[in-house]
Formats: sequence, structure tokens, C-alpha cells
Amino acid sequence: MAKIAVISVGKIKTKYYKDACDDYIKRIARYANIENIEVSEFTLPKNPSQKEMANAKGIEGDRLMDRAQKYDAFYCLDGLGKKYDSHKFSKLIQNDFNKGKNSIAFLIGGSNGLSDDIKKKSDGIISFSDMTFAHHLFKVMLLEQIYRAFSIINNEKYHK
Amino acid sequence: MAKIAVISVGKIKTKYYKDACDDYIKRIARYANIENIEVSEFTLPKNPSQKEMANAKGIEGDRLMDRAQKYDAFYCLDGLGKKYDSHKFSKLIQNDFNKGKNSIAFLIGGSNGLSDDIKKKSDGIISFSDMTFAHHLFKVMLLEQIYRAFSIINNEKYHK
Repeated sequence: MAKIAVISVGKIKTKYYKDACDDYIKRIARYANIENIEVSEFTLPKNPSQKEMANAKGIEGDRLMDRAQKYDAFYCLDGLGKKYDSHKFSKLIQNDFNKGKNSIAFLIGGSNGLSDDIKKKSDGIISFSDMTFAHHLFKVMLLEQIYRAFSIINNEKYHK
Repeated sequence: MAKIAVISVGKIKTKYYKDACDDYIKRIARYANIENIEVSEFTLPKNPSQKEMANAKGIEGDRLMDRAQKYDAFYCLDGLGKKYDSHKFSKLIQNDFNKGKNSIAFLIGGSNGLSDDIKKKSDGIISFSDMTFAHHLFKVMLLEQIYRAFSIINNEKYHK
């Protein structure tokens, strides 16, 4: 069975987002071993400087990289990345599977975003939207698209 | 106080999405009179024909139009519309307010989408993403962007 991971910075505290993530994780588990990995946020002082924010991004990037490198492929989620529709996103996953890449990770940065270093090392940068969404809402959106991708790959009717 | 409405087809049943919508509605209420209007879905037979689906879309469009026409401006949400980032989306709302349009509605179609007729009559068609999202998840995304737009307009720090 294929392995899919969502690796993100910070813990979800809002109950409705946690419940939404848990629900999609349960649904994806029918198709793949799905891992939900949360690396810890780097705590910044109040009103951090640009340098402190860049530093936090770098440290969080290292924490993400440490987990991501165990996968055959990993992708960064970033508003400035390449745009996919749901079918193209499912093709991306399918193509990796076809190439024998059976474990894929998707990375979501913290409130400071993803470091340039991790973006360079990734297998691709994916954009869902020009808009900025709350970090934890975005995780639900990503899990929903992964679930949708598997239902497309398996030619199943997607039940909303 | 300005009036904002989200008018959508069908009732949200999933608890976590209902809770998420309620939370954003409560937050937006600090800035505007926010209305959450759900018009009823047209019940289709199993395995409907193209004609039956088009018919449903038309009837649901009429139900949406009936509510939408009471607003100074109304926008359709549709994947093929014009893309906005969060700042441009807030500008769209701000510009309407500046023109004296103090009540704005945002329309989300049902599983069959929005009719061409209502799209033509609207003040604009807005796309959030090339991707297809579950209907009710999309409503959360829209409410979050409306909340974000108001915090941008009011120059407030957005608390995730």
C-alpha cells in the first residue's frame, strides 16, 4: 500500500479543524497509509525582526526536511508554486506511483512560510490558490484534495 | 453597518463544517451584518440525465436569484471566474462600499454548479482555485476570506 504524509508546522488546536482532518485521514486510509506529522513551531518573541522570522523559517525548514527526506518524493505547498486542478493533482500522485515512488510527502510551512532551501530540495512546489488561507484550514483543503485524488485514481464517485 | 450575505444551495450537515461556518460568521459579525442563506437543493433522480441536471441548475439558479437581487451587488463563485488574491478580494468589497453599495451577496451553486443566467446577471464571477473542493468546505473557505477581507480593510492583524 502506498504511503502518503502531510507534514506541517504546529499543532491544530481548533476542534472543528481537527475533526475535519481526522475525518479525511480516515477516508484516505482506505487507499493509502496516511501519516499526519506535525513538527513543532519555533517560538518567536513578540514583534519579531525580519532576521528572527527568517531564522525561524530556517529552523522549521530543517525540522520538516528531517521528516520529508524519508519519502521517495516530497512536495512543498506554496502560493507561488505551480497551479494544479484536482485532476492534474491526482495525475501527479499517480505518475509518482507509476515510477515506483510509493511514498510521497506534502509539506505545509508555518506562519512564516517555507524556507527557500526546502523548496529547492523538493520535487515540486504546488499552489492551490492565489489566496492566503488560515494555516489549519489549508491543511483540511490539502487532505480533501488528497482524498479526492485517490477517488479520481480509483475511478470512484466522490461523495460529498 | 454593511450587509454581507453568503447564499448557497443545500444545508450543511457535517458538524465540523457547520461549526467552522458558525465560528467565521460570529467573527465577521464584528464588521458587518452577515447573513447565511441556504436555498433548498432541487432533488434529482438517481443517475440523472444531462437535461435533468441542467434543469436542476436552472431551478436552483432561480432560487438563488430570488434572494440575491435584494443586494446592491452580488458575485458568483465559480472555478472558471476571475482569480483574486486575498488583498484584491478585500479591495473588491472595499470598492463596492466606496461606491455606496452597502449590501453584497456571494453565491455558491449546488453540486451542479451555477446557471449561465445567474452568472450573466451577477456583478462578477470570482474563482478561488482551479481545484474542485467539497461544497461545504468551500463555504468555509469563502467565509474565511470574507473575514480576512474585513481584517485587511480594518488594518487589523489577522489571528489564525
